[in-house]
Amino acid sequence: MAESLSGRSINKRKFFSMSRWALGIDLGGTAIKAAAVCEKRGILADRRFLTDTASGPAGIVAQLAAIIADLYRDASRTNEPDNFAGAGLGAPGAVDTANGVLSYPPNLPGWSIFPLRDELRNCLEQQQGLSIPVSIDNDANAAAFGEAVYGAGREFRDFLMVTLGTGVGGGIVLDRKLYRGAHGTAGELGFMILDFEGPSQHAGIRGTLESLIGKKAIVALARQMIDASPSGSSVGKLCNNDYTRLSPRHLEYAAHEGDEVSLAVWERVGSILGVGLANVTALMDIRKFVIGGGISAAGDLIFVPALKQLRNSMLPSMHESLELVPAFLGNKAGIYGAAALCFG
Amino acid sequence: MAESLSGRSINKRKFFSMSRWALGIDLGGTAIKAAAVCEKRGILADRRFLTDTASGPAGIVAQLAAIIADLYRDASRTNEPDNFAGAGLGAPGAVDTANGVLSYPPNLPGWSIFPLRDELRNCLEQQQGLSIPVSIDNDANAAAFGEAVYGAGREFRDFLMVTLGTGVGGGIVLDRKLYRGAHGTAGELGFMILDFEGPSQHAGIRGTLESLIGKKAIVALARQMIDASPSGSSVGKLCNNDYTRLSPRHLEYAAHEGDEVSLAVWERVGSILGVGLANVTALMDIRKFVIGGGISAAGDLIFVPALKQLRNSMLPSMHESLELVPAFLGNKAGIYGAAALCFG
Repeated sequence: MAESLSGRSINKRKFFSMSRWALGIDLGGTAIKAAAVCEKRGILADRRFLTDTASGPAGIVAQLAAIIADLYRDASRTNEPDNFAGAGLGAPGAVDTANGVLSYPPNLPGWSIFPLRDELRNCLEQQQGLSIPVSIDNDANAAAFGEAVYGAGREFRDFLMVTLGTGVGGGIVLDRKLYRGAHGTAGELGFMILDFEGPSQHAGIRGTLESLIGKKAIVALARQMIDASPSGSSVGKLCNNDYTRLSPRHLEYAAHEGDEVSLAVWERVGSILGVGLANVTALMDIRKFVIGGGISAAGDLIFVPALKQLRNSMLPSMHESLELVPAFLGNKAGIYGAAALCFG
Repeated sequence: MAESLSGRSINKRKFFSMSRWALGIDLGGTAIKAAAVCEKRGILADRRFLTDTASGPAGIVAQLAAIIADLYRDASRTNEPDNFAGAGLGAPGAVDTANGVLSYPPNLPGWSIFPLRDELRNCLEQQQGLSIPVSIDNDANAAAFGEAVYGAGREFRDFLMVTLGTGVGGGIVLDRKLYRGAHGTAGELGFMILDFEGPSQHAGIRGTLESLIGKKAIVALARQMIDASPSGSSVGKLCNNDYTRLSPRHLEYAAHEGDEVSLAVWERVGSILGVGLANVTALMDIRKFVIGGGISAAGDLIFVPALKQLRNSMLPSMHESLELVPAFLGNKAGIYGAAALCFG
């Protein structure tokens, strides 16, 4: 920080915050979320763009560079450029953080193995005339790190963050640092197999957690349970009896209204999540879980059965200090964490 | 090592090895194995005793102290006492290594939470007149560390060691060090749940890996498959048609002779192991596995289907560098690893 205390900075001190700041970008298959984040004060400004998936890696790199350049120029009007720590990017797929390489991102057609960090850095320099340090990591890791530094994980030294949404993802924090594994693919909780001979599948693998409680699986389970229920369910009227439009939100609403079938659906979803978390505790001795993602909005409908099943799935001697808490940063965990990569 | 180069040591150099040495003890419910281990040359002398389980913690502590004192006095006739690094102990159950406390060891009746390290150190001092540094760890961790330092894990930076026997155990090595978790219970692979609604149980938990491929489960599976087989199995004559005496050894022998049922039993056992290992890879990005324990003597009968299933249970992008190797140190991994704790 010595540089920021020299000449120019001190003169501007009354206008500029002295805290470090960075840009955090969350690259998704549908949207790119971006923010300028102050290390101390959190998000200063954030934006959202539709991902230009059609133009492949080069197109997305150009789009990211334009977003970063724009946000950087805006934010550096009120934040000391000398305190700028860089741009962090969370991306779907396996990320080799040391070399900045992204492999096989799902939902980004046309990508295979791509040196995203260096390409983005080059593009920023050549197309935007900006020399900016870039860090990249997996999006689930970025979200977990965001919760670790700014959110529900602040009080935990070790925890796993679970993201419940279309997919089921995970990010692991050990000793307040991201645990990435040797190839950067650690934390793939959605691929945890809980029912190896079961009927459900995901990416051709049977009985994975995502195949059991990903968004599609929850809806399919609900339709099955509604069909099997002799007394029916009040969910029907929430989706105008068009069950192709059934969503977890409807099930959440109906459950809060006391609909037995919806309550049973969430009970089962939470319970299966609990089995998955028990495997994490058995293997890694992690006993703190931060639960985020759109589906986690169901809250205690999921959390209560999950914690119960988690306890029932392990020896009593390992029940000590088990805890399940809701994520705190919502869909901003990724941008927070991506920015925090630059403060590391 | 400066001390060992002073006066007395140098004079004795022609008689004494200059390498460090330690005692490694493997405390089991049936037997105590103990050895003097030279850091460079490996086991110098080893012994085996029946565990005095009937006298509870105090009795076993006295027994351990006597064994350690005896072995120490013998070994220090030919090994420089100045180079003695201490006694390491692998014990069943959860071990808090920082405080040297053992919790709820299975197969040791009458134990609950016990300060084993300090009690053993005190007993050595008071009953044997020896002041010896003592380190303790979980037995599966000790075995994994033994393989890491002296065995099949030497070439792997990160790996999981699986012990297949009466129970199914695991020990995790990350960056060549033991990964113990916050409470010392990491690596409980036997409690990994693979069939959460299945009929099998172990310690009251459904569908765990141990309930599926522990020794009892293998024998039960074989009996079931023999009963169901229209053409019968040659295993019957190996146990004189007394199926209560059926053991994995019989199934191994029969499979090598081409018995279809026995081959199918191992195929299924290996395949289920592969599912369990896939969960380890998904969660921790560990791709190297060292397989030990009595049941692992079945070798490729287990290894081939396990590796096949492991690959089939994850995305092709994660197949890179998956490897399954047999443990190298047999039932001496625990004493090697316990001694190695002292060299750490």
